[in-house]
Amino acid sequence: MDLGYTPRQHVPPSSITLGHYLFYRLRQLNIQTIFGLPGEFNMPLLDKLYSIPDLRWAGNANELNAAYAADGYSRIKKLGCLITTFGVGELSAINGIAGSYAEHVGLLHVVGMPPIAAQVKQLLLHHTLGNGDYNVFHRLASDVSIYTTVITDTESCAMEVDRCLTLAYTRQRPVYLGIPVNLVDTLVDSSLLNIPLNLSLEVNNKEIEHEIVESILQELYKSKNPVIVVDACVTRHNVKEEVKQLVELTQFPVFCTPMGKGAINEQHPRFGGVFVGSMSSPEVREVVDFSDFILVLGALLSDFSTSSFHFAYRAKNTVLLFANHAKLKNAMYPDLKLKYVLQAILSRCDPSKIQYKPQPVPDVIKPKIRLMDNVPLRQEWVWNQISHWFREGDIVITETGTSAFGVNQTRFPSSTTCISQVLWGSVGYSVGACLGASFACKERGGSGRVILFVGDGALQLTVQEISTMIRWGLTPFIFVMNNNGYTIDRLLHKKSNAGYHDIQPWNNLKILPTFGAVNYDVRKLKTIGDFMQLVQDEKFAENTVPKMVEIILPSMDAPPALMDKWLIDDNLEEELHKRVHEWYTSDESPSAFKKAKLDTESQGDDSSRVIIQEPMNPIS
Amino acid sequence: MDLGYTPRQHVPPSSITLGHYLFYRLRQLNIQTIFGLPGEFNMPLLDKLYSIPDLRWAGNANELNAAYAADGYSRIKKLGCLITTFGVGELSAINGIAGSYAEHVGLLHVVGMPPIAAQVKQLLLHHTLGNGDYNVFHRLASDVSIYTTVITDTESCAMEVDRCLTLAYTRQRPVYLGIPVNLVDTLVDSSLLNIPLNLSLEVNNKEIEHEIVESILQELYKSKNPVIVVDACVTRHNVKEEVKQLVELTQFPVFCTPMGKGAINEQHPRFGGVFVGSMSSPEVREVVDFSDFILVLGALLSDFSTSSFHFAYRAKNTVLLFANHAKLKNAMYPDLKLKYVLQAILSRCDPSKIQYKPQPVPDVIKPKIRLMDNVPLRQEWVWNQISHWFREGDIVITETGTSAFGVNQTRFPSSTTCISQVLWGSVGYSVGACLGASFACKERGGSGRVILFVGDGALQLTVQEISTMIRWGLTPFIFVMNNNGYTIDRLLHKKSNAGYHDIQPWNNLKILPTFGAVNYDVRKLKTIGDFMQLVQDEKFAENTVPKMVEIILPSMDAPPALMDKWLIDDNLEEELHKRVHEWYTSDESPSAFKKAKLDTESQGDDSSRVIIQEPMNPIS
Repeated sequence: MDLGYTPRQHVPPSSITLGHYLFYRLRQLNIQTIFGLPGEFNMPLLDKLYSIPDLRWAGNANELNAAYAADGYSRIKKLGCLITTFGVGELSAINGIAGSYAEHVGLLHVVGMPPIAAQVKQLLLHHTLGNGDYNVFHRLASDVSIYTTVITDTESCAMEVDRCLTLAYTRQRPVYLGIPVNLVDTLVDSSLLNIPLNLSLEVNNKEIEHEIVESILQELYKSKNPVIVVDACVTRHNVKEEVKQLVELTQFPVFCTPMGKGAINEQHPRFGGVFVGSMSSPEVREVVDFSDFILVLGALLSDFSTSSFHFAYRAKNTVLLFANHAKLKNAMYPDLKLKYVLQAILSRCDPSKIQYKPQPVPDVIKPKIRLMDNVPLRQEWVWNQISHWFREGDIVITETGTSAFGVNQTRFPSSTTCISQVLWGSVGYSVGACLGASFACKERGGSGRVILFVGDGALQLTVQEISTMIRWGLTPFIFVMNNNGYTIDRLLHKKSNAGYHDIQPWNNLKILPTFGAVNYDVRKLKTIGDFMQLVQDEKFAENTVPKMVEIILPSMDAPPALMDKWLIDDNLEEELHKRVHEWYTSDESPSAFKKAKLDTESQGDDSSRVIIQEPMNPIS
Repeated sequence: MDLGYTPRQHVPPSSITLGHYLFYRLRQLNIQTIFGLPGEFNMPLLDKLYSIPDLRWAGNANELNAAYAADGYSRIKKLGCLITTFGVGELSAINGIAGSYAEHVGLLHVVGMPPIAAQVKQLLLHHTLGNGDYNVFHRLASDVSIYTTVITDTESCAMEVDRCLTLAYTRQRPVYLGIPVNLVDTLVDSSLLNIPLNLSLEVNNKEIEHEIVESILQELYKSKNPVIVVDACVTRHNVKEEVKQLVELTQFPVFCTPMGKGAINEQHPRFGGVFVGSMSSPEVREVVDFSDFILVLGALLSDFSTSSFHFAYRAKNTVLLFANHAKLKNAMYPDLKLKYVLQAILSRCDPSKIQYKPQPVPDVIKPKIRLMDNVPLRQEWVWNQISHWFREGDIVITETGTSAFGVNQTRFPSSTTCISQVLWGSVGYSVGACLGASFACKERGGSGRVILFVGDGALQLTVQEISTMIRWGLTPFIFVMNNNGYTIDRLLHKKSNAGYHDIQPWNNLKILPTFGAVNYDVRKLKTIGDFMQLVQDEKFAENTVPKMVEIILPSMDAPPALMDKWLIDDNLEEELHKRVHEWYTSDESPSAFKKAKLDTESQGDDSSRVIIQEPMNPIS
């Protein structure tokens, strides 16, 4: 494994402090940026950070945003580190940590704590609940972490740091590490750094592995209409290469879930689209729902359902390979590492036994639809057309809300990464994640772009993290989908005009200069013509400065799957199928789009071309 | 007790939904604004809110800010209500709830939860940790609430709502109420609303009460140098009137703690200033530390110490009356309600037995010091002079940081309220609290002003809540003390130039228009002349539009108590006393100030008058 860094590049003295030890270990795991805010109980730890080569303190605007940023960073680099202070700091971040826990994101949360002496004496420090209980926050963290510890032993503290890092990295979940402020300077033997962390996964029990692999292969060989579905843990647990080999070996059609988007090359000839349960396109549903064998790789969920959506595998013959366990039909197999199971399948599979004859997969390439320049923009059209603007190496981030649905309409170039918090679904996450991903993107070098899609409502929750992007000279593209409030909630709850869906309208394009940006690029798009001008502008496509594009959309507009869901009653699922099918099979005038055009026409004079463009700063 | 509202003003039908029942009860407790964000699992509840007369949904920018706002509202109105959604929403708010718990603030936190059926089946809903555990968030809340419940029983649900409200109101702590979305429409008998909530406190055990009151009176009668110290729970538990009577009856000198500021009329002839332990002025320390009897009323803390500050009562003869218990010397008396103990003292005290002969109290009126117009502003001068701009009925809010120290230098007009989160100390709290206090201020009528002092660093954590103020036409005065980063941390940690103290510089005066304000007033002050012009501007003093004043201060400037603390080593406490004493006794050239002037002079040409004033919008 290439760690990208070895301690030999910078030889530390023979004894170093615990704080230094922690940071050298993080550097060995290729961490170059650490997120969080300073506080009384973590500042002595932060002081150490500044003496470590190539390590940077991001200095976030608030702790929740910092947790989101560390999560976004980890989704690119396999590990993120967040440092907060006791009580107020760590509690502000806990919702972000819970998201990392739910979605399998490796994270080390270091909390600077009061000195041991104060804890023992139960002094009434500030940032306590005033009841002398110093364990309460550690206790709270244990529900959203796979491992929690507070350093109290000066002998074993280096080993404890190693354990935390190893668990966060290999299990891809948050780990909580409390460091009392008086122990930061505990001296540890720096030669421990020469022993690499053991990041290999525990090997599977060979007998169990053999049993399940043989069962899977038997099903795989004999199936007539098989599919492979790629879910979130393929990316998180680092088996993208194995999955690609399996698709090429079997030639099975391959789909991804919304959380698995980006885990398979969408330009691959066997890629058939995104499977979103009942909200999938009819072509995708047809293939997946009527398959006789579904192999779900890197499953995070066996079901994904809310009061509005239903996501399930209908085929009786379903194999779910989770990160650390597996399910074959109704049998559970605990303690099975995904990576080893996949490797065993690959090495034992005899392609000559595969009965499946490759069938065409659904065509996911949406044609470029050119409308009149003066037609106002709609989500459906924007999401279809923006695919053509994406390019290899892009990191695309979407927000819980309409953009998380819209992105499923796009087809990614190869090597595109998608970040979206589909399961936990904390609104505002994407802005913090965009910061973290931007650091990670910069650190891996090259000209990769970070592209954020966020609604005007969600943006308000975490807007200040844009300031941190400016501070560090990061250059994301921020598309603000302005549909005048919480449209996803309007659609989900069907009370279209309830006041609680409204938000205070902002001058979004003033945000960058207000937060101190000097060189930046901002645009407002209202029409097809505005959009076409933007995507044809080659200079705009380069990530030279931070850019914000506000796309003005009607307040009840949404990607078509949501639109249709909204227009009908929950019980009329059949009607939905019919409508979606109609929409997808009609090349020229899908029904949802026809309705959209009608709305537009009634809004005003369609013949006059309206282009509103904000004054633009020169691109440096 | 005047509830300000009776259900008779608007007669509901005989059966109403549980949602309506909750909101009618809140109106009976004089709640007119509810804070929070919409989410899938609370929207059916929010729908009910819109049909209740005189009840408003604030619609906050994020949940943590909403919790701060509900806390600030409650500090004026005795109860605040926050509504969030399951998982993501409630966890985002938990740091704010913990603050209300630590600081004794009455709060009802209502969480919209998934339907019971989904919980029982352990469906993998979004906003869960993906492990089928629906109780985890309720469990987390129990550590920061005095009572938590989830409605599951349709028979007793109205009673359960009553219990929650009664506990939050009488105990002045947060209560957690989970309402599964499918139970919002449970019908309850609306005639229950005609039975007023029992908000009276449980009476004390008469024998115990008699014992402690007699003991206190004996000490009170014989003391030669007594003092009364007023702490936070005097305001929270509604005994300001009893405290005032006790001061007038005994003529004892009365001081307040930082958390008790505003609980006693600072214009009262017996008021002697703010007691901040070792950071008090020498005059205050002299009286308090050398007293032979200290009666601490509404104590929240018996000790308040951090690594940098020490706050303790030195007199052996100290009586601490907490909200619900008491401590006499070393004896603890559980279950004693502060209000009844005070009332018993008042009714049984015989003034003729009091031996104390009133002595003069320290003079807390700081003279108006007029410096040359071109002298740059410093915290010390600003805090002393701003007192003269305050007026009766003001609500003054300060942030954890230098402003929380600065405000202790001010002397309030009568009927001034102070809001500051001294114990919990969550940075960014003040902006949310300012929103809540502004609603409360507007609801009590009159021309009361809300005045916020926030540092440029703290402002960045919660800035978006200013948008909610604009949305509702609220008109606070926001003083941004711009000292270029986290000055309080620089002082506490003494690493004056560590990078983690820095923040991205913002164009703070652009915030109001960026968030959509049309009518507003913004100013930038750099010099004494700028400041004098502002405080002499009678139009500025009226709260007609939201106003932001950015006060530019040197980055290492702070109120004198902090400055001195920072300049010396922790161990040199005696030296501190000497220096502080020197500073306070020298009328014309206090040492800290001399140093400050020296810094200024070295920065540039002092003789040229610099006034920088941002263009100002017309005041509507």
